[in-house]
Amino acid sequence: MKNLEHIGIAVSNFSEANKLYSKLLGAEPYKTESVESEGVNTSFFKVGEAKIELLEATSPDSAIAKFIQKKGEGIHHIAFEVKDIVAEMARLKQEGFVLLNELPKKGADNKLVCFVHPKSANGVLVELTQEIKGEE
Amino acid sequence: MKNLEHIGIAVSNFSEANKLYSKLLGAEPYKTESVESEGVNTSFFKVGEAKIELLEATSPDSAIAKFIQKKGEGIHHIAFEVKDIVAEMARLKQEGFVLLNELPKKGADNKLVCFVHPKSANGVLVELTQEIKGEE
Repeated sequence: MKNLEHIGIAVSNFSEANKLYSKLLGAEPYKTESVESEGVNTSFFKVGEAKIELLEATSPDSAIAKFIQKKGEGIHHIAFEVKDIVAEMARLKQEGFVLLNELPKKGADNKLVCFVHPKSANGVLVELTQEIKGEE
Repeated sequence: MKNLEHIGIAVSNFSEANKLYSKLLGAEPYKTESVESEGVNTSFFKVGEAKIELLEATSPDSAIAKFIQKKGEGIHHIAFEVKDIVAEMARLKQEGFVLLNELPKKGADNKLVCFVHPKSANGVLVELTQEIKGEE
C-alpha cells in the first residue's frame, strides 16, 4: 500500500454535508462527480495529500443507501493507493482476505478500484485504488 | 486542517488485529502504546504520510469498549493535524461544531488532541491533533 488515498463518508443530505465539511476543513470541495454505476453523487475535499469523499445515494438500491439505512451516516470506507492493483488483489487473496470484486472496476476520480470485505478487516471496508493513466 | 494524520480503528482482539493489519498493509506496527487515561492499548502503522491506529479497550468503561458494544469493530475516528489546536478549536466552536473537550488534552503519540462530536459531522468522530514540541 503506497498511501492513504481517501476516506469515504456516507451522507444523507449532500448539499448540507458539503457546506458542513467546507466549514470543518476550511475549503470547498474541489470537484463533484456522479458515478451512475454505483448510484452515488460524490464530492472531494483535499486535506494535505489525502482526500475526503462525501457520498450521497442517488438510488435506494445503492450501497450507500443501504449503509445509511443500516448504520446511519458516517465513515463508509478507507481507500489505499496501490502501484499495481491486480498484483495487490492477488497478494491479499492469498493472505486470506475476501475481495468483493474479482476484477478491478472503474470507480470515481479516474481510478480502478477493488473492495476488501469488511469481515476480513475488523469491520472496515477497505478500497484499493490505482489511477487510470492516459485519460481523464 | 493541515493533513489527515491518522484513522483510528476499534478492535476486539489486539494481537489478532495487529497480525491482520500487518498482512493488509504489508508492514508491522512501528510502535505500540498504552494510554491509561483513555483505557486503551494502541498500535500504529505507517502508510505513506498517514497512520493507521488500532485501539483495544483495556477497561469496560473506555470509549472503545462502549463503541464496540454499540456498533461492533470498525473505524472509530479520523484525525486531522492542525498547526494551532487552540485557534482551530475556537474557529470550529464559532462555526457551530460541538467540541467534546473544552481544552486540548494529552492523547497517544505525543499529541495534544480535541474531539468534535460526531453529531456535528454527519456521524464522524473527528479528532484534531497537534504535536507536543520539545518532548517525546
